[in-house]
Amino acid sequence: MGGEFGLIRDLLAPLAQNPSALGLRDDAAVFSAPKGYDLVVSTDALVSGVHFPAQTKASLVANRALACNISDLAAKGASLAGCTLNLGLSSEWDDLYMRELISAFGAGLKTWGLELWGGDTVRTPTGFLSLTVHGLVPHGKMVQRSGAQNGDDVYVTGVIGDGWLGLQQELGEQNHLDDVRKAYSDPQPPLAFGQKLIDIATSSLDISDGLMADLDHLCHASAVRMDIQGADIPYSGAGQAYLNAGGALEMLLGGGDDLQIGFTASPAKEAALRALAQATQTQLTKIGRVTGDVTQGDSQMSRAVLRSQSGTEIALETRGYRHF
Amino acid sequence: MGGEFGLIRDLLAPLAQNPSALGLRDDAAVFSAPKGYDLVVSTDALVSGVHFPAQTKASLVANRALACNISDLAAKGASLAGCTLNLGLSSEWDDLYMRELISAFGAGLKTWGLELWGGDTVRTPTGFLSLTVHGLVPHGKMVQRSGAQNGDDVYVTGVIGDGWLGLQQELGEQNHLDDVRKAYSDPQPPLAFGQKLIDIATSSLDISDGLMADLDHLCHASAVRMDIQGADIPYSGAGQAYLNAGGALEMLLGGGDDLQIGFTASPAKEAALRALAQATQTQLTKIGRVTGDVTQGDSQMSRAVLRSQSGTEIALETRGYRHF
Repeated sequence: MGGEFGLIRDLLAPLAQNPSALGLRDDAAVFSAPKGYDLVVSTDALVSGVHFPAQTKASLVANRALACNISDLAAKGASLAGCTLNLGLSSEWDDLYMRELISAFGAGLKTWGLELWGGDTVRTPTGFLSLTVHGLVPHGKMVQRSGAQNGDDVYVTGVIGDGWLGLQQELGEQNHLDDVRKAYSDPQPPLAFGQKLIDIATSSLDISDGLMADLDHLCHASAVRMDIQGADIPYSGAGQAYLNAGGALEMLLGGGDDLQIGFTASPAKEAALRALAQATQTQLTKIGRVTGDVTQGDSQMSRAVLRSQSGTEIALETRGYRHF
Repeated sequence: MGGEFGLIRDLLAPLAQNPSALGLRDDAAVFSAPKGYDLVVSTDALVSGVHFPAQTKASLVANRALACNISDLAAKGASLAGCTLNLGLSSEWDDLYMRELISAFGAGLKTWGLELWGGDTVRTPTGFLSLTVHGLVPHGKMVQRSGAQNGDDVYVTGVIGDGWLGLQQELGEQNHLDDVRKAYSDPQPPLAFGQKLIDIATSSLDISDGLMADLDHLCHASAVRMDIQGADIPYSGAGQAYLNAGGALEMLLGGGDDLQIGFTASPAKEAALRALAQATQTQLTKIGRVTGDVTQGDSQMSRAVLRSQSGTEIALETRGYRHF
């Protein structure tokens, strides 16, 4: 770690007023996890021109770098501790852009209650933010992808599709719909809700690649199959209007970047979940059920099946991917 | 975290046969630090064309990514726990290159005893490896940069300059000297030695930017000044021959990439240090002394002064930088 770049160091140092960061002046950060807690570690890299358009405003890049990583911890039931940031400085980013980027990153850290522990700054032709976030869960309580049980209900937080629709609006498309740009430019993973899942959910993951693709991942890890009721998937007004106007279901379901939580829980937990959703002001929708165990490693059988109201399977050409 | 890329996932999964990684199939890794230990976190990014020539062989890139990060932990007295890797896949890297890169990375993990906990794989025009490493030290024992005391001796492990000379040889220069390419292509930070410094050193850092530049950092953090005896700085046979032939001292001292440890200790600790060096087969050289306290934040005074045998200051045009 280090600070080869004076401006960047001067901008980042005020964001790191926590004991672990040692003023960003040491080779490493040091953190003492509280007794009885496990460390939960996740990392994601966002690359200019790949995960966001090269001309994207700096605050959007900072917001998304934080949210994509925090979303992973939220789905695991973790509270936030600290992060390290490797910042690849594009030659296309001038001082003003860097100031805005770091200012927005700092504001995000404060909002989320996440400490900056350290990082590295490098020059690169293609700008990137590589963030590693550290959270805490009570020992042994992290909600994994692999615990779904036959008969469990399947839930999702928030709405599906607004991440993708929001990006379209940022790009100048779909602007006839209600403005959902913030779902893309400043996503809000349901962190408080997620933290309470440690005593409720049997499995959980963040919805980032696309609802059906991610639920497939959960099915594979848990060696189960599930039915998802297409009519029960929650959309925003903009999402519903997009579908009503003949928009492609594949894009809304599989466009990615929802940063919501998909999880499974025993039907006995429904009342507790409804109360939790109300207490944390989180939209919560039951969208399906785990319908059977499959042989571990059987990727043909361990998947989420999207059903119409008549019960037939709705085939999707694509189940998910990450755009920008 | 995730594995959007089938080949990469298949190659990385066998490297992550540890409980924390959850088979690289979850959103996050989970780690339970042993009671009484602090977590030490460091991170460095290596970018193609910036930190290594774009045509560099894959094993060299993997070795250096690991060594640059492990060097930071070695200087802090930490033992190794696990790491997360964000891999930016360059379009210039074909499958063979990727296989070699990940194979060498896996071999390095095994050699060092470092677990792979997780990561993210992204496509990018410019390849990069962004690695975050986690180590452990007994609670409160991490050796910081800030503890040097007036009267302490200044030491360095290994030799200085071979990282830079080794790169020159990789680039086809300085090949009349003894072959020191491995100092660049497969650096070996003195991890076992560093771990024992927790009860001996007052301050420590890794020598990566260049000896004098890094000792300046240590002086700033500790608010001290120090004298370094130029005649006592250890060089390899190749380094000495380079100087004898009129090579620039600035390049040998400030070329960077030594990945050794510079540290301070009370003169009373010399016998213990000599015994430790012998026990760990580490070359250890006393190169100077802390000569006084300075006002915190006085960057003019808090620096390492390079002295000739007659005691005059040897002025250096550059004190350090990171090439490639």
